[in-house]
Amino acid sequence: MKLARCTDGGAPFWAVVEPEKGTLRPIEGSVAQWGPALTRGEGEAALRFTGAQRPISSVRLLPPIERTNRVVVAGANYAKHLAADFGIKSHSQPIAFLKAHGALIGANDALRYPPLTKELDHEVELVAVIGAERVDRSNPLSSVLGYTVGNDVSARDLQRSGPPGVGMDLFAAKSADQTTGLGPWIVTRDEFPQGSPKLRLLLRVNGDVRQDGNTAEMTWDVGQLVSFVDERSSFECGDVMFTGSPAGTAQGSGKFLQPGDVVEAEVEGIGTLRNVVTLMD
Amino acid sequence: MKLARCTDGGAPFWAVVEPEKGTLRPIEGSVAQWGPALTRGEGEAALRFTGAQRPISSVRLLPPIERTNRVVVAGANYAKHLAADFGIKSHSQPIAFLKAHGALIGANDALRYPPLTKELDHEVELVAVIGAERVDRSNPLSSVLGYTVGNDVSARDLQRSGPPGVGMDLFAAKSADQTTGLGPWIVTRDEFPQGSPKLRLLLRVNGDVRQDGNTAEMTWDVGQLVSFVDERSSFECGDVMFTGSPAGTAQGSGKFLQPGDVVEAEVEGIGTLRNVVTLMD
Repeated sequence: MKLARCTDGGAPFWAVVEPEKGTLRPIEGSVAQWGPALTRGEGEAALRFTGAQRPISSVRLLPPIERTNRVVVAGANYAKHLAADFGIKSHSQPIAFLKAHGALIGANDALRYPPLTKELDHEVELVAVIGAERVDRSNPLSSVLGYTVGNDVSARDLQRSGPPGVGMDLFAAKSADQTTGLGPWIVTRDEFPQGSPKLRLLLRVNGDVRQDGNTAEMTWDVGQLVSFVDERSSFECGDVMFTGSPAGTAQGSGKFLQPGDVVEAEVEGIGTLRNVVTLMD
Repeated sequence: MKLARCTDGGAPFWAVVEPEKGTLRPIEGSVAQWGPALTRGEGEAALRFTGAQRPISSVRLLPPIERTNRVVVAGANYAKHLAADFGIKSHSQPIAFLKAHGALIGANDALRYPPLTKELDHEVELVAVIGAERVDRSNPLSSVLGYTVGNDVSARDLQRSGPPGVGMDLFAAKSADQTTGLGPWIVTRDEFPQGSPKLRLLLRVNGDVRQDGNTAEMTWDVGQLVSFVDERSSFECGDVMFTGSPAGTAQGSGKFLQPGDVVEAEVEGIGTLRNVVTLMD
């Protein structure tokens, strides 16, 4: 099943999407109401449909997260990206941090070029969505509702501007307004084989492939990341977790994003974010 | 005026508090509805009272923030704390990061001892509350609704556990469930002299004074911090910003918090948080 968060100009709502038909059907309530039952595998019986089928094109796809949920990024998870792009050779655990809601954009929204940076970069990532009320740490994957696609767009010059002794400024780098693509929808866990997903990740800029990796290359798999974060600060139903990005970012190549660039982030079996880098105010 | 967020067991509500009388009076709506008008200085005319006066003791004081607002910490702001407690001698800008809502506790709530740490520390801080819909960067203090007290409790061993090359793990250190005191209420800006506040900060453990500083010692004042954060990731009405902690933390003295400790964080002219460190599940 695929779940999108949508607006047709009014209040946001959730919907079941059928991309192959180009249609969606609105459902009632918030993720806290139907997330746990869907995560337990109850399927459509967990949902109450509130309207007729309509074309996906009749709505704007929003980031599939509610305002009361949090955006966690669990990074430093692809050794080649760290070594090639940052010169970091080994480390014993991931790093997690929070991203501001204001940073999020939907699958087809404009990507705002932040005024303070000259080094805007892309990071395609698999994003896990927590569906259980509380994570079951003995079987953390059972607490995952499904997966979506993220583009953890990063201002690298700001990332390096943190005080010496403190470290990277991940807030300035990764919480700039309207920069982080999330979507187009959540694909529920039952659509993938058991275990941590092994999916191809692709990032294209103006059609040119810049990142081409696979989530099987993760240093810590989805279950390990969910537990790592939850032990430090508990997840709630509807929270999302970015899981790190593979090699090929502009941090390594120097090919930073420019206004006008068409950025496509794709995860196999889920979908594609297509955001155009745009100068605003 | 003093504004508290309260519960009497049901849905949280805001109230105007008169601590000297021991009473409060509930008001209607969310901070987004009355915050901008109060911040412009319209006073009680901006509020609609919804009930009679009642004793403060009839409610539980919650952290004065709504779930859709964010908690920003703008740290590295007291040179003596950085030099004495972390050996960081100079830096050219502050560092900001986000704290999870689940970390927050009210003025009299139990402070959960996080299971992963052996080095739990205290950090009394002045906390600014944004009241304008958008920050006016030409006069950032005019966008501040008022001030409250924060205790940015930190797990120092986890703080040092971040990957080399990335830096401190501020998420693990400062977003542990039920650790960060916030409150007891917001004191509106008009109760203080113009400019960035110059207020004494005190932190006591079992009555023993551990931190005794003044917000006048800040490297960057409240207006500069508000602009610094807002340029990187925009504030909204109701967001709160911690402003850093003065010297005297356990990171310097080795006197880490233990279960049973009574921790009091006080800011002159605002109030006191009193939280008891407690072992929970």
